[in-house]
Amino acid sequence: MTSSTVTPGAFSEETSADVVGASFAGTPDPRLRQIMTSLVHHLHAFVRDVEPTEAEWAAAIDFLTRVGQTCDDTRQEFVLLSDVLGVSMLVDAINHRVSGGATESTVLGPFHMVESPPRELGADISLDRNGPPCVLAGQVRSTDGTPLAGAQVDVWQANGAGFYDVQQPDVQPERNLRGLFTTDADGRFWLRTVVPRYYPIPTDGPVGALLTATGRHPYRPAHIHLIGAAEGHRPVVTHLFVEGSPYLDSDAVFGVKESLIRPVTVVDDPERAACHGVDNPFRLIEFDLVLEPASDPR
Amino acid sequence: MTSSTVTPGAFSEETSADVVGASFAGTPDPRLRQIMTSLVHHLHAFVRDVEPTEAEWAAAIDFLTRVGQTCDDTRQEFVLLSDVLGVSMLVDAINHRVSGGATESTVLGPFHMVESPPRELGADISLDRNGPPCVLAGQVRSTDGTPLAGAQVDVWQANGAGFYDVQQPDVQPERNLRGLFTTDADGRFWLRTVVPRYYPIPTDGPVGALLTATGRHPYRPAHIHLIGAAEGHRPVVTHLFVEGSPYLDSDAVFGVKESLIRPVTVVDDPERAACHGVDNPFRLIEFDLVLEPASDPR
Repeated sequence: MTSSTVTPGAFSEETSADVVGASFAGTPDPRLRQIMTSLVHHLHAFVRDVEPTEAEWAAAIDFLTRVGQTCDDTRQEFVLLSDVLGVSMLVDAINHRVSGGATESTVLGPFHMVESPPRELGADISLDRNGPPCVLAGQVRSTDGTPLAGAQVDVWQANGAGFYDVQQPDVQPERNLRGLFTTDADGRFWLRTVVPRYYPIPTDGPVGALLTATGRHPYRPAHIHLIGAAEGHRPVVTHLFVEGSPYLDSDAVFGVKESLIRPVTVVDDPERAACHGVDNPFRLIEFDLVLEPASDPR
Repeated sequence: MTSSTVTPGAFSEETSADVVGASFAGTPDPRLRQIMTSLVHHLHAFVRDVEPTEAEWAAAIDFLTRVGQTCDDTRQEFVLLSDVLGVSMLVDAINHRVSGGATESTVLGPFHMVESPPRELGADISLDRNGPPCVLAGQVRSTDGTPLAGAQVDVWQANGAGFYDVQQPDVQPERNLRGLFTTDADGRFWLRTVVPRYYPIPTDGPVGALLTATGRHPYRPAHIHLIGAAEGHRPVVTHLFVEGSPYLDSDAVFGVKESLIRPVTVVDDPERAACHGVDNPFRLIEFDLVLEPASDPR
């Protein structure tokens, strides 16, 4: 019997990716066919590259199984795995190629699970007053510089101890450090909050064990999440990162972009302090959101 | 602020694999470091190749989560995923490069979960008599041709309806179609069984849904599992495949190798039939197991 009688199944180390790839040739949806064929080629290339022992492959299967079984209604360990492998940020980069000076995006993260409550400009979103008080102010503009009045700015963040409200339901007030603001006639927004602290991603699951085994720390540098949205423009999901925070050079999820780092300045201006309803001098973070018109070619 | 101030975190579509790969540079175990670095490069190459939308990436996360959550004490859906992507067979091929005419290996499969009971040569392992009766006979030899007396031959298989005993605990007798045999002074083994039928891998989970979505069938061609083991030799985990079975050219798990296909012959020999305790004429499958000495260089 010659090898031609088993066609196309002449599987070998050398042919495996082609043989398995060919098994997906009949996939009705061309996009799924493309994805599966590419997956098979890259996955087999990885296996041929590292030549896992059978024990190593069994350990990988066990790891992935535990990642799946750690997921529940409030925890997504596979997203966390995607995050620490930099895949979430790569997918974000591919889907949000910006041009013309628009604000860069970064990951949404897992803590936008509740809607931010609409608040008046100038409101204090720090309901637990845990952290150094500060004012956050900025302007929403189109890439041509036009201020965008009536734009929406969704803000959420951890407190000065590094926890989001949903992580401490017994300690923090509901909707602490969350707010949905609408820009004024000049496209400006401002609010009172606290300077957030850096914090660790969850370390009690298999992804935490992977970080430990690989000598990586689990920390994210201090940041405030923002979504900017305005009619006729592409929304942007991003963070502002606090200049000087630990871990800016080693974010566990690779979310930091240079253009998103902002200093906390100390402003000594009694009139402006009074306008914001804060003591003078006061801390200030300024962050503008620049949106691309939705009609721009990509 | 220039991009050099965030080092090594200058993450971009182009640099992502290097940046994330570098995060594993401090992994204490060099093998784990090698595996994670390679994984990151191949995984990022895959993502850059297909450029998934955010919805597609979320669907992939959801799929993997459901694969993990389908696993339990008696089911391993990640192994099944590895199987249908041909990775299990590739890992098998890498770990069992044979030479000198040794019997080729194939996957262990998920049904060797109970130990095969020791049985006398010539015993009938078909306790439910479901399928066409046949004799299975062969010889265990070393690659130099020396017959291996006292070698162990572990046999297990599905019945004529395509089910293993553990899949039908209420229908099949315990340890149906399983037996552990010891070769005679000439290295020979023989037993009575039935010709197995092709069967589908489990299709009620996410892997089954993947096969459906990609237009692939879930069937494995008819086969009998064997493990051959003898002192001073490398054991071999393999199947014999039944010549003429449907799906020999499209095994859902890519396990078929040309060298493992055997015909079911009909033997008209009253003396030999009497010796096996079967009616004449009788069906016969012959399958020798050739083992490599354990000391052979690989």
